Amino acid sequence: MHRETLGEFGRIREFFAPLAGPGGLGLGDDAALVECAPGRRIVATVDQAVEGVHFLPDDPPDLVAKKLLRRNLSDLAAMGAMPRHYLLTTALPKSRGDDWVKRFAQGLGEDQRRFGLHLIGGDSTSTSGPAVLTLTALGEVAVGGEIRRSGAKPGDRIWVSGTIGDAFLGLKVLREGNGALAPEHCAELVVRYRTPDPRVELGVRLGGIVHAMIDVSDGLIADLGHVCEQSGAAATVRLNAMPLSEPAAALVGGDETLRAQLASGGDDYELLFTAAPERGVTIARLSAALDLPITEIGVVESGSGVRVLDADGRPVALAAGGWRHF
Amino acid sequence: MHRETLGEFGRIREFFAPLAGPGGLGLGDDAALVECAPGRRIVATVDQAVEGVHFLPDDPPDLVAKKLLRRNLSDLAAMGAMPRHYLLTTALPKSRGDDWVKRFAQGLGEDQRRFGLHLIGGDSTSTSGPAVLTLTALGEVAVGGEIRRSGAKPGDRIWVSGTIGDAFLGLKVLREGNGALAPEHCAELVVRYRTPDPRVELGVRLGGIVHAMIDVSDGLIADLGHVCEQSGAAATVRLNAMPLSEPAAALVGGDETLRAQLASGGDDYELLFTAAPERGVTIARLSAALDLPITEIGVVESGSGVRVLDADGRPVALAAGGWRHF
Repeated sequence: MHRETLGEFGRIREFFAPLAGPGGLGLGDDAALVECAPGRRIVATVDQAVEGVHFLPDDPPDLVAKKLLRRNLSDLAAMGAMPRHYLLTTALPKSRGDDWVKRFAQGLGEDQRRFGLHLIGGDSTSTSGPAVLTLTALGEVAVGGEIRRSGAKPGDRIWVSGTIGDAFLGLKVLREGNGALAPEHCAELVVRYRTPDPRVELGVRLGGIVHAMIDVSDGLIADLGHVCEQSGAAATVRLNAMPLSEPAAALVGGDETLRAQLASGGDDYELLFTAAPERGVTIARLSAALDLPITEIGVVESGSGVRVLDADGRPVALAAGGWRHF
Repeated sequence: MHRETLGEFGRIREFFAPLAGPGGLGLGDDAALVECAPGRRIVATVDQAVEGVHFLPDDPPDLVAKKLLRRNLSDLAAMGAMPRHYLLTTALPKSRGDDWVKRFAQGLGEDQRRFGLHLIGGDSTSTSGPAVLTLTALGEVAVGGEIRRSGAKPGDRIWVSGTIGDAFLGLKVLREGNGALAPEHCAELVVRYRTPDPRVELGVRLGGIVHAMIDVSDGLIADLGHVCEQSGAAATVRLNAMPLSEPAAALVGGDETLRAQLASGGDDYELLFTAAPERGVTIARLSAALDLPITEIGVVESGSGVRVLDADGRPVALAAGGWRHF
């Protein structure tokens, strides 16, 4: 179906220009200027949302936009960085009309106000295939406040924010229906899948407190594996210490196989970090201040690899954890 | 066709990790840290290459990579910025095997050495549609050295680097064959289409000399229109002052319609800028020092819009200039 459309420049003018920051730097130039105060560094990350891979054709466009932005904000949070700016590219099939783009931009608008960042540049083009959206986020961190994956030390405790497995179960609900679950629980899981809550404030406040951090996107076990690999260390986690939401706990019940699946499901966008045991008090205070559960789930050790223990302390064999594209 | 493949992490390890800079910041973390010296700003830009839109399925992957990178470098050059880092995302169909990715990365490797920048982050995923590649480039400029589109002043002269129309003709040669042109001329035009030469050094050296600058990507007339719009000014250009390469001049001959097409063809990645008339001497010296033609083609005036004059000084009516996606 071919319809009248605003065209590339029209869409930029109508939908995207209003997302530019004060001064609108960038959208009217070849490139955007980014200020960096003395003693601070820019932090850059990029993620894509591909139709059929990261979202379904009928997903609400505002939520597609929010999830793409939030995945990036979660990456910035894992570095301890405050979000500042973003660039967006869209490759859209002709079937995505102006209305889809408008609602997509509305989602961005709501979230950029919530998280305090602005659009500074981008590019839009057509494609004969599914929609591909790419978002580059730029944040800011004080020199020395940045948190890497490589700093975990044997003896560190391992913590994770929020709850794990909700997005995995939310996608399952969308695909297979709700089964035995109460409607409000279903809705809660779907929200967690569609609009994860990047732990921006927690990330920034953990600077100087923790040794290593990552956001849980590939899956708790896989991402802990990345930390171990980068740190040259091993880790042991207790599966039954893994924090579950009320609906997830209801679904898991005594199903230890499902519990293990949640540990490798991914898409959680919680923060996983390691710190010296004595930091526990500070972390508990932070948890209370932010009204966000932070749970100790394991310990860093010498060696390599991740060991997962069941409720009886026996090692669990997990299938290769995490999402793989390709 | 399904083949054994290195997978996402394998491809990153084999092909992309070697493109990371000293320290490899970013590829082993959630996001990349970017240093910014006091008194300098970061400049950010992004562009995509979509199969079937920006490149053809059989185009050499190393040249696809180079053109994508160079289009971004041209944007940085137009701001007067020196390239430093880039982030890359790939959404590839399964039919693009490891070999394609390897050759794509080789092209990036050659060009990043040539232009002095490094890969600091990215994301790769699969798509059921054509390949979509997105590259975000980060550069650096001294505060005050940046060049905007909005600074053109009535009385300014308009200059353009290199030659215009070669990429347009190169694509025509690829699509329709060479016609009357000598083989070496055909080859020259195709090279200009596939691997434009971003005017990085010229861009940096024009800081403090020129009032407004843009790179010619949508087409000479359309891009000059962007400068006029952002500057609140008008411009008049003389079509026969527009610099042509030897093969382009041979093709144009007395065909004024073709000459006008070259002015709106786009994909040139030359720098178009305006400066006070007395800067002509400095600009001529710079042209000699860089061994790069820089040609005066018109003048900035009060008002709005771009007026194009033919060899007899009569206004030429051009079709709406420049490329439009969607």
